Amino acid sequence: MDVFEAIKDRRSIRHFKPNPITDEQIEKILEAAIWAPSAGNLQARDYIVIKDHDTKKKLCESALNQHFIQEASINIVVCANEERSAWKYSGRGRELYCILDAAAAVQNILLAAHSLGLGACWIGAFNDGAVSKILNLPRGLKPIAIIPIGYPEQKPNPPPRFSLKDVSHINRYEAKRRTL
Amino acid sequence: MDVFEAIKDRRSIRHFKPNPITDEQIEKILEAAIWAPSAGNLQARDYIVIKDHDTKKKLCESALNQHFIQEASINIVVCANEERSAWKYSGRGRELYCILDAAAAVQNILLAAHSLGLGACWIGAFNDGAVSKILNLPRGLKPIAIIPIGYPEQKPNPPPRFSLKDVSHINRYEAKRRTL
Repeated sequence: MDVFEAIKDRRSIRHFKPNPITDEQIEKILEAAIWAPSAGNLQARDYIVIKDHDTKKKLCESALNQHFIQEASINIVVCANEERSAWKYSGRGRELYCILDAAAAVQNILLAAHSLGLGACWIGAFNDGAVSKILNLPRGLKPIAIIPIGYPEQKPNPPPRFSLKDVSHINRYEAKRRTL
Repeated sequence: MDVFEAIKDRRSIRHFKPNPITDEQIEKILEAAIWAPSAGNLQARDYIVIKDHDTKKKLCESALNQHFIQEASINIVVCANEERSAWKYSGRGRELYCILDAAAAVQNILLAAHSLGLGACWIGAFNDGAVSKILNLPRGLKPIAIIPIGYPEQKPNPPPRFSLKDVSHINRYEAKRRTL
């Protein structure tokens, strides 16, 4: 699928068919993730692939009971590896770069899933401590996204976006009034 | 260009030809940025497009004198809009979601530029206060990336990546030893 088409047509999918996705699809999606850029190529991020029903159920409870976490064939939890980034970049690594490394990988995962005909959703609202406990995350690994992935059972309309004029500035910032 | 090809073949470009890029190209790139997902569709991010030579020079000085900031036809500075995210999500919005919103847009910008035959680089190492002053950023707008964009003058080899086995875990985290 063309890059611009994937970027523009991707939607957040919150209802999934029961059909399972294959290990080959999971690999293609993770391969897209690892090729995201990262600060100093440290790749300060890790991926937990959740296939187990019981773990999905617990994750769902840790994330405001968003039911589609359980419904999805798999979930990928993307974690920022604070230690790996701090090792080279100290505070800025721990507080910023590893978050950016992880987020770039999440965006690739969403585009890859969509281009394979799958649906996904970037969930950021969850209890960090609960997720860390469920997934046995060590200190220094911070979960930043839960991504349910499966065959989409819905085709949502695109939500509105600010116009380019509203959010872009030439050479320096100028105050603008904008509404959606 | 195919999504997977764009994701895998994109490189960080740090040498540019003098040829200018067009406003139409800039618009396509920003259009890709605005279609990135965001927490609650708040789109807590803004874009400053730097065309002016003097501003590029100052930006370059604020970012460890990475010369290609000046060399590039344009730079896009992507900012996290802390206020917009905090308005709905309080601390988690200000400290996390707006950073993620901005990072997802950066990744789309890099993929869009590459697929148009342009080169770009995600620069995270700069003096936040200096950049804010140069670009007249109001309080609550945090610059998270400087992205020089232009026609590439180099074709770097892909840097090594961790293997999928090294960075992915099934159902729960397990300690692994990994080296690049």
